[in-house]
Amino acid sequence: MLEIERKFMIASDAWKDLADAGTPIRQGYLSLGEPTVRVRLKGTKAYLTIKATKSPGVRHEFEYQIPVGEAETMLSTLILRPPIEKIRYCVPFAGHIWEIDIFEGANKGLQIAEVELQSRDERVDLPYWIGPEVSDDPRFFNAYLTHRPFAGWGVDYATLLKRV
Amino acid sequence: MLEIERKFMIASDAWKDLADAGTPIRQGYLSLGEPTVRVRLKGTKAYLTIKATKSPGVRHEFEYQIPVGEAETMLSTLILRPPIEKIRYCVPFAGHIWEIDIFEGANKGLQIAEVELQSRDERVDLPYWIGPEVSDDPRFFNAYLTHRPFAGWGVDYATLLKRV
Repeated sequence: MLEIERKFMIASDAWKDLADAGTPIRQGYLSLGEPTVRVRLKGTKAYLTIKATKSPGVRHEFEYQIPVGEAETMLSTLILRPPIEKIRYCVPFAGHIWEIDIFEGANKGLQIAEVELQSRDERVDLPYWIGPEVSDDPRFFNAYLTHRPFAGWGVDYATLLKRV
Repeated sequence: MLEIERKFMIASDAWKDLADAGTPIRQGYLSLGEPTVRVRLKGTKAYLTIKATKSPGVRHEFEYQIPVGEAETMLSTLILRPPIEKIRYCVPFAGHIWEIDIFEGANKGLQIAEVELQSRDERVDLPYWIGPEVSDDPRFFNAYLTHRPFAGWGVDYATLLKRV
């Protein structure tokens, strides 16, 4: 399938009033090239996902559920860098489900909101707690964060919010 | 699971008397690094396979059946090089199943026999039609053949048989 998404920084914690309980995610990459190959533990399930850029903001995505034990083996022995850890919260707003990623570990402090769209130009009402858009900023790509985690950016999130 | 296999050249066509009807395989790589990520069409089925070297001749292998249509999309749009094409024949011999790959396309002329083992030092009776072992010769790795297909080796198979 094609994945079309937009990605934003988060301007306030107001999203928490609308969020679900959150699901822990641990993921890593078997290939950081093009395409990327990602293994992800999400709650009690595991997935293998292939993504390749088709055009800006639009990606081929193939996702397969795999046994949790095999994902754990891949995360502990095969991935190219330490895994990314985050909690994902789902927040409904004006007909879309927003995914809020609160990063931990080497990316602690980083927060990203994503929304999936049916087409690149689909109109989406931005929640009032949304910050600047970073859809095309490679620093915020998860594959990039494995190379250059947020801890090494040398800037705190509040300062970054004003600069992006 | 762990994959332990040995790989050989083929000295004669005598294996054909014992072989099945053969299954066409078309495969390509989403990652040629370590681990490799392979997509394969095999007959009417499709698989995504991750392999990583654990020690010489021993590899981690994770294989997942995927929808044929998705494999076809990956093979036509996402793989890093032109696909490898071959016919695979299964040949029972002395308690093992040998897999004979007869390559086509850019690797036409190349023939490889493989046998999977339970352990690296498992005794295996070599069929009389088997040639020299090439288990640790990277030229015969399928991932390598996508970079350097047999057509460009500048040697025919009969000559190579004497040299390896």
